[in-house]
Amino acid sequence: METEDGRWAGRTCLVLGGGGFMGSWLVDALVRRGAEVRAYGRISQFAPRREDVTWLVNDFADRVALARAIEGAEVVFHLLGAGTPESSNADPYANLLAGPGATLQLLNLCRSEGVRRFVFASSGGTVYGIPQSTPIPESAPTHPISAYGVAKLTIEKYLHLLGHLHGFDYAVMRISNPFGPRQSPFRRQGLIAAILYKLLRGAPVEIWGDGSVVRDFLYVGDLVEAFVRVAEYGGPVRVFNIGSGQGLSVNEVVHGAAAAIGCADPRIVYKPGRQVDAPANVLDVSLAARELGWRVETPWAEGVRTTADWMRGLTGRASPKRGREGDLAK
Amino acid sequence: METEDGRWAGRTCLVLGGGGFMGSWLVDALVRRGAEVRAYGRISQFAPRREDVTWLVNDFADRVALARAIEGAEVVFHLLGAGTPESSNADPYANLLAGPGATLQLLNLCRSEGVRRFVFASSGGTVYGIPQSTPIPESAPTHPISAYGVAKLTIEKYLHLLGHLHGFDYAVMRISNPFGPRQSPFRRQGLIAAILYKLLRGAPVEIWGDGSVVRDFLYVGDLVEAFVRVAEYGGPVRVFNIGSGQGLSVNEVVHGAAAAIGCADPRIVYKPGRQVDAPANVLDVSLAARELGWRVETPWAEGVRTTADWMRGLTGRASPKRGREGDLAK
Repeated sequence: METEDGRWAGRTCLVLGGGGFMGSWLVDALVRRGAEVRAYGRISQFAPRREDVTWLVNDFADRVALARAIEGAEVVFHLLGAGTPESSNADPYANLLAGPGATLQLLNLCRSEGVRRFVFASSGGTVYGIPQSTPIPESAPTHPISAYGVAKLTIEKYLHLLGHLHGFDYAVMRISNPFGPRQSPFRRQGLIAAILYKLLRGAPVEIWGDGSVVRDFLYVGDLVEAFVRVAEYGGPVRVFNIGSGQGLSVNEVVHGAAAAIGCADPRIVYKPGRQVDAPANVLDVSLAARELGWRVETPWAEGVRTTADWMRGLTGRASPKRGREGDLAK
Repeated sequence: METEDGRWAGRTCLVLGGGGFMGSWLVDALVRRGAEVRAYGRISQFAPRREDVTWLVNDFADRVALARAIEGAEVVFHLLGAGTPESSNADPYANLLAGPGATLQLLNLCRSEGVRRFVFASSGGTVYGIPQSTPIPESAPTHPISAYGVAKLTIEKYLHLLGHLHGFDYAVMRISNPFGPRQSPFRRQGLIAAILYKLLRGAPVEIWGDGSVVRDFLYVGDLVEAFVRVAEYGGPVRVFNIGSGQGLSVNEVVHGAAAAIGCADPRIVYKPGRQVDAPANVLDVSLAARELGWRVETPWAEGVRTTADWMRGLTGRASPKRGREGDLAK
C-alpha cells in the first residue's frame, strides 16, 4: 500500500467521474498519496463514501458547478463518459454534445484556471474500430464503429489542438476493458462483472455472438497505477495504450472465470452478435512500459477472484442501493 | 464542354453550399450533365444567378428547410463549411456545433429520405496537421492543428460509422487548396485570389511568415471534375485526396502569379506567421488517379491567368454586391 508521496501531498486533484468504477479507485489512490481530492459527478454506487474527499454531485453539463470544481485544481482527471458504445449509436448527436461538446467547455475552463496537467480516459477498446492486426499500437488507424468511439477520438484531437495552439499539458490513456470490484454487473459495459454475477447465482451466462470475440482485460488496480504514472509523466508522449496486452476470447473468459471461482459447469446462452463489437481488440502496451515503466502486475485469474469475492458480498444484499433492481429480483 | 449525360440526366442532386466558390462551379457542371439541381445555402456572391436551378436560401441549422431540400434527392454534395481554419480556433465549441453537429442532423435526414450517394468535401489541407513527410497519402496520421480540421475529420469518422452500421453510401474528398474564378479575394481563405487581387491593383502583397510555407493548389475546373467522378464511383474506396500533388511555396506563388499576369515587380510585405499554418502540405493523389482515372489537366499558370482575367472584371466594378467593401475602398 502506498504512503504519502511528495509528488502528490497537498496537491489539489479533480477527478471527473470520481464516483464511477474507475474513478472511485483513482480517488482512493490519490488520497493515499496525500492529495486533496475533489470527486465530481454521481455518488458512487458501490464504493464506500469517503469523508476525506470533497464530493461535488453535479451534472457534467453544469458549467457553473464545473467552474467551481476546477478553481485551484492542479491536476484534472477526465473519466466522465457518455453512455456506452451500444447506446451511443442510437443518438450520435446527443453523444456528440455530451462528450466532445461538454469536454470543450471543460477544457476552456481548465485553460483559464491554469490547470497544470490534464489526463483523459479515452477508450482503447473503441477508438481503433476493427483493427488490421493485433496487438494494436498507438499509431494504428482509428476508425471507430461506435459513436462512443468517435466522441473519444474527437476529444483526443481537440486535446492535440490545444496542446499545439496553447501549450496545454495533457495526456491520453486509451484504456482496454477494465474490470474489478465496484464495476456494476447491471450495465451493458463490463463483461467480467456481468459474467461473474451470473455465475455466482448459478444463472445462465448470456453471450452476444459465438464467444470468439477477443478482448484485452485490465485489472482496475493496475489501471489506477497507470493513471498515477501518466499524471506524473513529464516526457513527450501524449497518447498511451493502457491494457494487459493479452487477448482472451469471451468463451475463455467465461470458462476461466468459472474455474477461478470453482464453478464446475457454467451454462452459456448464445445471442445474436452486435455490430458495435470489433472481432478482436488487444492493445500493444510497449510504449507505456518503456515511457512509464508501467506494466500489469495482477494475474488475470487473481483479479477475477478478487472481483468475485467483492461480488459475493454484493449478491448477499437484499437489494442494491441503485441499479436495475429488476435484474436482481429475477 | 460536357453535354447531357445518361448517368445524370433527370437525377435530383442537392448541393449544400451551392452558392459558394466550389459549389457554384459544381452546380454548373451538374446542370450541364442534365441533372435537376437544388442549391442550398447562401446566394452566390460572384456566380451569375441561374434560372435552371432551384435556390434554397437557408441556414445550415434550419432543419425544416434542410428536410425539404433533401426530399427526393438522390445525390447530396456537402460543401458547407464552418468558417475558416483561423476563425475556428477562436471558438472550437461553436465550430463543433456548426460542423459535426449540424452534419449529424443532415445525415439523419439523408438516411431517412433514402439518399443514394453522399459526397463530403473534407479538407486535405487541414485534416493531416503537420505531416511527417510529403506528399501525404490518405493513410497518413491525422492530427489537425485547427478546430476546422478537427471538425472535418470528425465528420469523416461519423460517415465511416454510418457506413459500417447502416450501409450508408458515402465518399470523402480531402481537397487541397482550390483556386479559380469566383473565389472571393476578401476572405482569409484563398491565397491565390488574395494575391491576384493585390497584384492587379498594384498593392503590396501581404504574406504570413517568410513565404516558405508550401501548399498544393488545385484549379477549380479540375476539382469539379473530381466531384463528378467521386459521385459516380462505385468502388470500395471511401476517402480520396484531391489535389494537384505538386507543392508550391507562397513565395513561388507570388512570383509565379506576378509573371503569369505580366506584373514585373511585385511588392511583398512579410507579416508574423500563424500557428494554424502547417509548414508544408502536398497531397499524394495516386489513389484518385488509380480509382477514378482522375488527374489535374489545367497547368497552374493557365489557371492563374484565367482567374486573373475574371478578377480584372471584378476590380473594374465600382463596388461588389457583397463582401468587405472597406477593402475595395482603400
